[in-house]
Formats: sequence, structure tokens, C-alpha cells
Amino acid sequence: MNQQQDTDKAEEGATALIALDWGTSSLRCYRFDAAGKVLEQRSHPWGIMNLPAAEDADQPDCSGQHAGFRRALHKACADWIAAAPEAPLIAAGMVGSKQGWCEAPYLTVPLAPDRIGRKLTRVETGIGGPLYIVPGLLQVSTLPNVMRGEETQVIGALAQWPEKEVLIGLPGTHSKWVRVSNGRIAHFDTFMTGEVYGALCAHTILGRTMQRDPSQASDEAAFVRGARVAQTADGNAGVLSTIFSSRTLGLTGELLPTAQADYLSGLLIGHEIAALKQLLATAHDFSPQRLALIGDAALCKRYRLALDLYGVGPVTLAQQATEHGLWKLARHAGLVA
Amino acid sequence: MNQQQDTDKAEEGATALIALDWGTSSLRCYRFDAAGKVLEQRSHPWGIMNLPAAEDADQPDCSGQHAGFRRALHKACADWIAAAPEAPLIAAGMVGSKQGWCEAPYLTVPLAPDRIGRKLTRVETGIGGPLYIVPGLLQVSTLPNVMRGEETQVIGALAQWPEKEVLIGLPGTHSKWVRVSNGRIAHFDTFMTGEVYGALCAHTILGRTMQRDPSQASDEAAFVRGARVAQTADGNAGVLSTIFSSRTLGLTGELLPTAQADYLSGLLIGHEIAALKQLLATAHDFSPQRLALIGDAALCKRYRLALDLYGVGPVTLAQQATEHGLWKLARHAGLVA
Repeated sequence: MNQQQDTDKAEEGATALIALDWGTSSLRCYRFDAAGKVLEQRSHPWGIMNLPAAEDADQPDCSGQHAGFRRALHKACADWIAAAPEAPLIAAGMVGSKQGWCEAPYLTVPLAPDRIGRKLTRVETGIGGPLYIVPGLLQVSTLPNVMRGEETQVIGALAQWPEKEVLIGLPGTHSKWVRVSNGRIAHFDTFMTGEVYGALCAHTILGRTMQRDPSQASDEAAFVRGARVAQTADGNAGVLSTIFSSRTLGLTGELLPTAQADYLSGLLIGHEIAALKQLLATAHDFSPQRLALIGDAALCKRYRLALDLYGVGPVTLAQQATEHGLWKLARHAGLVA
Repeated sequence: MNQQQDTDKAEEGATALIALDWGTSSLRCYRFDAAGKVLEQRSHPWGIMNLPAAEDADQPDCSGQHAGFRRALHKACADWIAAAPEAPLIAAGMVGSKQGWCEAPYLTVPLAPDRIGRKLTRVETGIGGPLYIVPGLLQVSTLPNVMRGEETQVIGALAQWPEKEVLIGLPGTHSKWVRVSNGRIAHFDTFMTGEVYGALCAHTILGRTMQRDPSQASDEAAFVRGARVAQTADGNAGVLSTIFSSRTLGLTGELLPTAQADYLSGLLIGHEIAALKQLLATAHDFSPQRLALIGDAALCKRYRLALDLYGVGPVTLAQQATEHGLWKLARHAGLVA
């Protein structure tokens, strides 16, 4: 495994901020100059559920409680820290969860995004200065909702648009749909679409008849066919029922084994968009003037396709939202000028 | 593992039929007398995905293609067959699927149940006489539906009731809801509720915060709380969204780790019943005068509770549907008088 990807060559600028996007399965690191420009970035597989194991070459301070976190930070950024020991460290994502390095308590929505940067949780790293961890957001409700990491992307994307009401979609393992209204994060919904898709493919009978060739392009026609289901009369049966068609269309010879994964992906995303549309229809205090997507390009393409089918859009794709957000949070926190 | 359970003591009646309920994970065997009374029954874990391995003591005919099926039949019923070599053999369930001993092609609905027994597929066993395999049912549609095994339970239960229109629910890994109208199996729907529940508990983040104590009774209050969700405004977000509350209610301290599995079970079953209710509301040609459940007693109890919450019922529980159905199919086939 290629454990380090230097996507930008290191440049000779002075480091003003070291920022981490530290999730469940990966650790992405950004080195900024004083103007907020990313000088260098790195990606490692050391998410909080996959921290590096101890090695003989470990520094003495990479032991004890939370040793895995210190070890990951050291392996990822020791050279940056050594070259700029005064540069502040900031991190967003699951690193602030109960299972993370240090719990950064949730802030409740609605709230103004610039409040988030003023509520960072400080943890001593033993490697250079302290690390400031961004809090997640909590929506108190009969069915509560939480996010960690996406708030940073939302903050990074928001500056780009003048509209007062914006709907931001963050497709992924757990898709988030965030309503921003008059400069406040007003409401958000979560759909476990990505994780459910993975579990259905890997751990149910639906996966048994699928054939997937990673070298092949995805089957867009199968995706669209699946995505349409939720808007038909058959879709009324709900996703617990419609997913069975991924198998039965195979049994009847109407869906090739190589098309079943894309069909199921479309089917689930279609149900998500159909439900989103219904939620928006009953949200009388929210009329978005812009719809934006943040995330993996291939996944955003799928969501844009499904949104089109349901007449929701047009869609803006937000770029570099994470790094913009980390920089802005560091500014709100007073870590950088 | 206790591989053989003799739930009835062998009696001295003459064997008129040996019948098998042969599914994915188990093989249940029934020995009938000429009056259709079950003299003896056995249950083994040798479902078609878990056939017994070869042993030194195997009979010579337990080799070659389909050896695992012959081996299972031999281990399960060799004594019955030896004592009554003329008794016919019948089997229903996944043994008739593509992955089974011999594919028994689907019959399409709507159809009269007594047609099923006239379309059995014969396979030579090499152990006593041939085995007659019951076909599954196929519903041709934009989203096709299939069943294997449940048709036998429906036939077994049907004789008990005089009503012209009956809705039969078969909760399980894949729940089936079968509409019987004027003596014909008219329509059926499938919900993958049980399998999705298992995959979510074992293979997603929802399972990570669950604590389950098999020695404890299930938490009915948590089940009911989950089952109500689909009928609230929050339920409009759909099951891909509402399931996340099993985790977030835990994070906010509103749902104990020990209650999360029952809550999630209720939530999924509630979504199934809500969707069923909507399907029935638009089925203008079907007004059931009776609602019956067939299946595991504890699971039927859960479904009855959820049906009550949604004002669907009253519910009849059908008993011994599988063995009644196998006997009736053998009669329709002319295998017994």
C-alpha cells in the first residue's frame, strides 16, 4: 500500500497552519502559508479506526493512552512540525468523537458558522504544540442528527455563494443534506445510503448474484434504471422491498450480474432523493436558491444524475471545501491572522 | 451442535409420505401416515448452503455431482426410507432453486394453489425412490417477485379459513405478504427486513453501539418506540435516514445500548407495515376479510404488535402450515391418496 501521496511538491513557503481532516478511515494533512494557500498536502490511511501500530523507531512520547493518535500525527507531520514548531495545529472529523483522540463536544444547530471556530477543544500532542479539534454539530429532535467533519466542508464552501438560502449535499458513507439560511446552519438530514449499499453488497443475498469488474466503467443505464424506481408506483413499497428487485431482475434475465451493483446504487440514491424532495416540500421556511454538492467526484456525478431525474437542481459542485473550511475555522479561532 | 432433534417419538404407524422443508439454512423432515398425520419430525442444520461434508462412512452413492444433497437426505432419512421404501418423497424450499439439488421452474401468479402440486420436478435420489420438488412462484412485473417454500406454507394455512380474501404475512429473512383472492394466489410482496436488520447489526456502525444479552427478554418498549417512527413526520425521511437514530439516540443518552437492537428491529418492521398499509390502500381489487401470520412465534409476536400500532388486524396465527402444505401438495400431485 502506498501510505503517502505527496500530491503537491513541497514549496519553500513558511508554514502558518497545519490542518488535519481526520476521519474514520483516512488522515489528510494540509500545510498552509500565511495567505491561506495550501503549500503541501498528504493523505494517509490512518483513520481513527486504523491507526498505525507501534514500531521500534517510535519516539518515546508515542506511548501510553492515545499513543496511536500521537504516532499517526508524528508519522504524518513530524517534518512539518519540526520545520515550523510555532505553527498551530487544527483537526476536524471523527478525531473529535468519543472514539477519537479527545472528545470535542457537539454544538447544536441552528447556529452561525463562525461560532464553531470559537469552540475548539485543545489537546496536548506531546509533538510540538497543542492540537485544536473542531466540534461536531448536533440537531436536537425526536430523531437527533449529528455530523463531524461535514461542518468544516460546509464552512469552506459557503463563502463562495451570495445566496441567502443554500442546500448543500455531502454524499458519502452517511450522506448529509445541510440547509443554510440567512448565514446560519439551520437544519440537516442524514441518510446512511453509502453504508447500507456496502452492507447489502457484501453481506446479503443481493451481493451473491453481482459481478463487479473494477476495471470497467460504471453502468450508467443500470444506475438510472435503479434511480427511477422510487418515483414509480412500485417505489411506494419502500426501499426494504424494492431492493429485492436487484436479485429478481437477475433471476428473470432482465438485469445482468455486471449491472446489479450499479442498479442497486441507483435504487438507493433514488430513494434518498425522493425522500429529500418530500422533506423539502414540507419545509415551508426554506426555499434554496442554490443546490451544491461536496464530495468525491464520481459519487457527486451519480447524485447529480439522480437529482436531475427528480427535477431537483441545477447543481453546483464545490471544490476544496475541506481545506477552505479548515483555514476559515483557524481564522475564526484566532489561530491565524 | 445437536444435529438431530426428534421432537416426536417414532410411532408404529406405517409411513405414507416423507416430506422435506429444505431451505437455505435448515432441513426439516416429516414422516406422515396415510391419514396425513405427522408420526415423526426431525430438524437438521443441513440447509442447501450448509450441506454435510463427506465422511468415511458414506454410502457409495453419496458421491459425484449433488453428493452433498444425497448425503444430507441419507443422514436425515435413511432409516425412514429403509423401513418404507415405497413411500414417496416430496420437498419444498430452496432445494428447488438454481443453487439447489435440481431447479424446479417457477410458476407464475395469479394461480390456483392446487395447480402447484401438479407441477413438481422429479429428481433421482439414488437412495430409495425419486424426490418430487415443489416449484416456487414468480410474479412477473416491472419489479418481479419470487418465493420458494412460502407457497407451501400458504397452501397449508389456506384450508383453515372460509373467507374469500385473505392476506397472509410470512415474516422472516425475507418477509412475504401474500394476497389470496377467490381461491387464487393473486399477488405477493417481499420485504428484505430480516436480512437488512442482520446486516445493519453485524456490518454497520449501528451495531457498534449495541449491547445484546441473549439471556435477556427483548425490550418491548424499545421495539414499540422504533415501530412508531414510520408513522410520524420524521418517518417521511424514509428508512435510509431514520435508521441513523438508533445511533444518535444512543449518543444523546436517550436510548440505552441494550435497547438499540430492539429499537432498530421495531423501526424496520414499522417501515415495512407502513409500506404494506400504503400498498393495500391502493389495491382497489383486494379487501382482505382475514389477516394471518405464519412463522416463528417470537417474530410473529413482533409483527402483530407493529400491525396493531398501524391499525391493521386483527391477526390470526396459523399453525403447522408447512407440514399441512407438504401433505396437501403430495395429495394434489397424486403421491398419496
